Amino acid sequence: RLCSQKNMPDQNSFASRTHACGEMRCTHIGEQVTICGWIQYQRHGLFVILRDFSGLIQILIPQDASAGHLKKTLYDLPLESVVRVTGNVVPRPPGQENSEMPTGEIEVQARDVEVLNICKKLPFEIKDFVKKSEALRMQYRYLDLRSVQMQYNLRLRSRMVMKMKEYLCNLHGFVDVETPTLFKRTPGGAKEFVVPSREPGRFYSLPQSPQQFKQLLMVAGIDRYFQVARCYRDEGSKPDRQPEFTQVDIEMSFVDQAGIRKLIEGLIQYSWPEDKGQIGVPFPSITYSEAMQYYGIDKPDTRFEWKIIDISEGFRNTDIGFLRDALSKPEGSVRAICVPDGAKHLKSKDIEFLRKDSRAQFNQEVTVVALKPDGTWKSPLSKLLTEEQKHLLCQATQAKAGDLLLLTAGEHEPVCRALGKLRLQCAELLESRGVAVRDSSAFHFLWVVDFPLFLPKEDEPDKLESAHHPFTAPHPQDALLLYTQPDKVRSQHYDLVLNGSEIGGGSIRIHNAELQQYVLEKILKEDKRLLSHLIEALDSGAPPHGGIALGLDRFIAIIVGAPSIRDVIAFPKSYRGRDLMSNAPDFVAAEDLVPYHISVAWPAVSQ
Amino acid sequence: RLCSQKNMPDQNSFASRTHACGEMRCTHIGEQVTICGWIQYQRHGLFVILRDFSGLIQILIPQDASAGHLKKTLYDLPLESVVRVTGNVVPRPPGQENSEMPTGEIEVQARDVEVLNICKKLPFEIKDFVKKSEALRMQYRYLDLRSVQMQYNLRLRSRMVMKMKEYLCNLHGFVDVETPTLFKRTPGGAKEFVVPSREPGRFYSLPQSPQQFKQLLMVAGIDRYFQVARCYRDEGSKPDRQPEFTQVDIEMSFVDQAGIRKLIEGLIQYSWPEDKGQIGVPFPSITYSEAMQYYGIDKPDTRFEWKIIDISEGFRNTDIGFLRDALSKPEGSVRAICVPDGAKHLKSKDIEFLRKDSRAQFNQEVTVVALKPDGTWKSPLSKLLTEEQKHLLCQATQAKAGDLLLLTAGEHEPVCRALGKLRLQCAELLESRGVAVRDSSAFHFLWVVDFPLFLPKEDEPDKLESAHHPFTAPHPQDALLLYTQPDKVRSQHYDLVLNGSEIGGGSIRIHNAELQQYVLEKILKEDKRLLSHLIEALDSGAPPHGGIALGLDRFIAIIVGAPSIRDVIAFPKSYRGRDLMSNAPDFVAAEDLVPYHISVAWPAVSQ
Repeated sequence: RLCSQKNMPDQNSFASRTHACGEMRCTHIGEQVTICGWIQYQRHGLFVILRDFSGLIQILIPQDASAGHLKKTLYDLPLESVVRVTGNVVPRPPGQENSEMPTGEIEVQARDVEVLNICKKLPFEIKDFVKKSEALRMQYRYLDLRSVQMQYNLRLRSRMVMKMKEYLCNLHGFVDVETPTLFKRTPGGAKEFVVPSREPGRFYSLPQSPQQFKQLLMVAGIDRYFQVARCYRDEGSKPDRQPEFTQVDIEMSFVDQAGIRKLIEGLIQYSWPEDKGQIGVPFPSITYSEAMQYYGIDKPDTRFEWKIIDISEGFRNTDIGFLRDALSKPEGSVRAICVPDGAKHLKSKDIEFLRKDSRAQFNQEVTVVALKPDGTWKSPLSKLLTEEQKHLLCQATQAKAGDLLLLTAGEHEPVCRALGKLRLQCAELLESRGVAVRDSSAFHFLWVVDFPLFLPKEDEPDKLESAHHPFTAPHPQDALLLYTQPDKVRSQHYDLVLNGSEIGGGSIRIHNAELQQYVLEKILKEDKRLLSHLIEALDSGAPPHGGIALGLDRFIAIIVGAPSIRDVIAFPKSYRGRDLMSNAPDFVAAEDLVPYHISVAWPAVSQ
Repeated sequence: RLCSQKNMPDQNSFASRTHACGEMRCTHIGEQVTICGWIQYQRHGLFVILRDFSGLIQILIPQDASAGHLKKTLYDLPLESVVRVTGNVVPRPPGQENSEMPTGEIEVQARDVEVLNICKKLPFEIKDFVKKSEALRMQYRYLDLRSVQMQYNLRLRSRMVMKMKEYLCNLHGFVDVETPTLFKRTPGGAKEFVVPSREPGRFYSLPQSPQQFKQLLMVAGIDRYFQVARCYRDEGSKPDRQPEFTQVDIEMSFVDQAGIRKLIEGLIQYSWPEDKGQIGVPFPSITYSEAMQYYGIDKPDTRFEWKIIDISEGFRNTDIGFLRDALSKPEGSVRAICVPDGAKHLKSKDIEFLRKDSRAQFNQEVTVVALKPDGTWKSPLSKLLTEEQKHLLCQATQAKAGDLLLLTAGEHEPVCRALGKLRLQCAELLESRGVAVRDSSAFHFLWVVDFPLFLPKEDEPDKLESAHHPFTAPHPQDALLLYTQPDKVRSQHYDLVLNGSEIGGGSIRIHNAELQQYVLEKILKEDKRLLSHLIEALDSGAPPHGGIALGLDRFIAIIVGAPSIRDVIAFPKSYRGRDLMSNAPDFVAAEDLVPYHISVAWPAVSQ
């Protein structure tokens, strides 16, 4: 039996079949087999194609009179009915092999059939090429999951998670510890679901991550912790966010940043699916400020170049007013990206849209230089620059005929952010026109490090808030700055980026109680009582520690090339947070709320 | 390095140590090592005992003048401070070995020390023999978890779960699928926590198990599903119940009861901890009615005999009024258990308590026969029975001098239940007096099968409710009874019992929509609209399927011999559902409830 091969699971153990539909090959010819599956289609009164999780197999219906009952049974069944067939594996007649089908060289000559269930209702056909609306797919998720793609996605996810656990637990001694999801509300935790308890006015909260628990486990001497942790975030309606999601949560003691990075590189390499090619380690690394400078974003998509280039030097003595103004500002610069073949493929309408968007979002004017096929310029700058200046600019940006240059000038950050966004927008536009910009089968991992520890608060820019969370340790080189210029302190936070998406983040944590208290009280002005148990814990022998969390849903979605994380979650919620199959959330009888001491505050009906 | 041994995880990878404290042996003598750990104790100005998750190691402080600083640093540190020590592994001087300590033949001669954190606060000593109150343990759980026992419990749990996953995923092709925990409220789901959503009046519910999802995954063709699933149950204050708990949840298609049982026996055997001895498979099996008849309970503790014996025959022609009355009832019988040495160890006070309890709980009069050392009877029956009758009774129950016979008479069920309870109570009483009744290192697994499918509703005994849940399939032999005498139908439910505790339960499910609808509508009188999506699913090609769920917390607690499941959960709630460390659940600001359209209904202050 194929399934008894080394390292292959026995997928037929304990079941009333001998083989899975898709696993049979020439080597099975002559064997009597029993298989179970769904009727995919019937044809010519002669064949039934049976499907299970492993694939398709052709059943040959005997045509002799004695088998009339068998033929009638099999052939009259509605599609998607479930049968058990016993028969012999035979080669297909020469010329009738199907090379598109892994089982295409054989068929099963039916000798006996048992109808296990008749399909009576089918809102859509179970064929991958049949397009279904998202709402219909969600309402009949149990049918949608029968598709080849969804079976592949869920099975790949399961296998990868298993490999991750092997790596962490079996190879590196990590301990899988479950942490509570009914916990205390984080002060200001606006995105936390509340869960009423039976004590009047008291609520649990569904935490956004096990952050506190993983750190407490280090204080507890667990040394190495991991958990595939369910997390919760109530963000209302946001596309591609789920109210509950999963992270691979990791923390270890006596480790530094380099250690965590090596651990994660090993983890991903070990669990990487075979059919997705090789990935190299170590992953490249870039500082936050480099990422901003070259890509205008903290999660650069490094599958393509088009870096942001500082062309300020070329305009030091310029007469062009807006460039001169920009350069006179502190941290003022002129920067550009070169979109290869951009002039060839982008229309004036596209360019108008991009300029408008940049203005609206970043308050940045974009100046465009289109290099015509003969190398001449189409640009408002054209008349303002000398041929030599143009030549120097093309040299700096490596622009050639057919390319498009996008320039902005002003303060460092908005200039970079605007160009960073234009870089991604232009890549998408070109790809939508059929130009190959990014290799869709490539996987570019990137560490982003040296983030700022604090950022100005959005609504009170005089005050600081944690860029990530208040437990992040400062960069050792900036330790003293903490007491003088906290806004200049870099952190020991690191993000893992894959193809321009953040798939993980973590940090070395503060393990010193005094430092933690200073950060909470003096810098963040938090009420220290709210986290007093954590301070106490640090004071009772906390080891140095650090960790990371990988966003499993997004990570898997990128690997399988799914457009949404909903395609790698068995039963996702709609973007409005609804389960369209069961119609959750739903109304609850008032008396069911009594034990929880809450009542519904119905909003006044607005005119 | 020890850790590079085959099949042993490398517990020092990526960390700033070369070895764990407890792993060093004679073979390491001569090596320079770096270890990190907590100061367990100091002695004689000469030694520091360092501890980490792996055990203890003795650090030898050099006594030469040049190492004065090192000595001062190490020796002045408070207990539980965290240090990194570099030094050489040396043999202990002859005669100073400690055979109690796995590392007792060696010590580490310190050459360098780095203080990583100073312990400033310690509400109790980290020594296993120091008794702490449960409340103090919970408040400082991060210290409590440093104990040898808690480290053992959590690590054994992690390893067992890992082995289970290997067995299911790698050996048998199960797919690990995560199912939602924000779901729709089950009608009448009084034990489900509600989670308010941002839609006025609509609530999610935290489900008690993924029952619906696992069945839908079978309809979806996943074929074999498992999940280590977080489940929720709001039972208010119950000892040894947790508001969130974990089950190993399993479902497969095209399987029968025997298949599931073999699967689970293999799972437990594969994941069984090496240090807990061997377990044999297959596990013995007993029907529900046999369990009731012989043990008076549906989860018999088979580590000891003391079976219930039907002694009705001996009293067929009795003149004793209450026995004659009992036997004249339908299903009336006289039964007994024999407690070996019971007369020797149980006092009249004990027996009075037992009789009173039996009367209160089961309305059963217990008649006691104490066999004195000389074999004579001390019993109210003594004068009423002939010597021959006495002899026959002793023969039937195998009672001998020093034993205690407990008799009850009446209807079958209360008689058995009362004796079943007495059996357990007497075992506990004898054990509390130091009599060995049950082997505390023995593990007796037992399948209980052929449960009734329905039971009379507690408050409306004319109506039926599901004994387990409405998706349980009827026993094939009783299929037709369903339409005539549903109360007589046995189910395809099975329970797995370990040492008298139910550690798992499952069933073959109904996969036929019409049958499911009949059960829901005609027998259970449920509103069919509430489960219409499940009926629809069964009608769209549901395969035959069945499954099981193992209660992981209790299973692990029994294996490690913990008195409570709180000892195998890292951060448990108190019996009142509180987290004593963070003080959850807690009050929430009224404005934080506004987005959820709920308000607190404060109970009126009672006089």
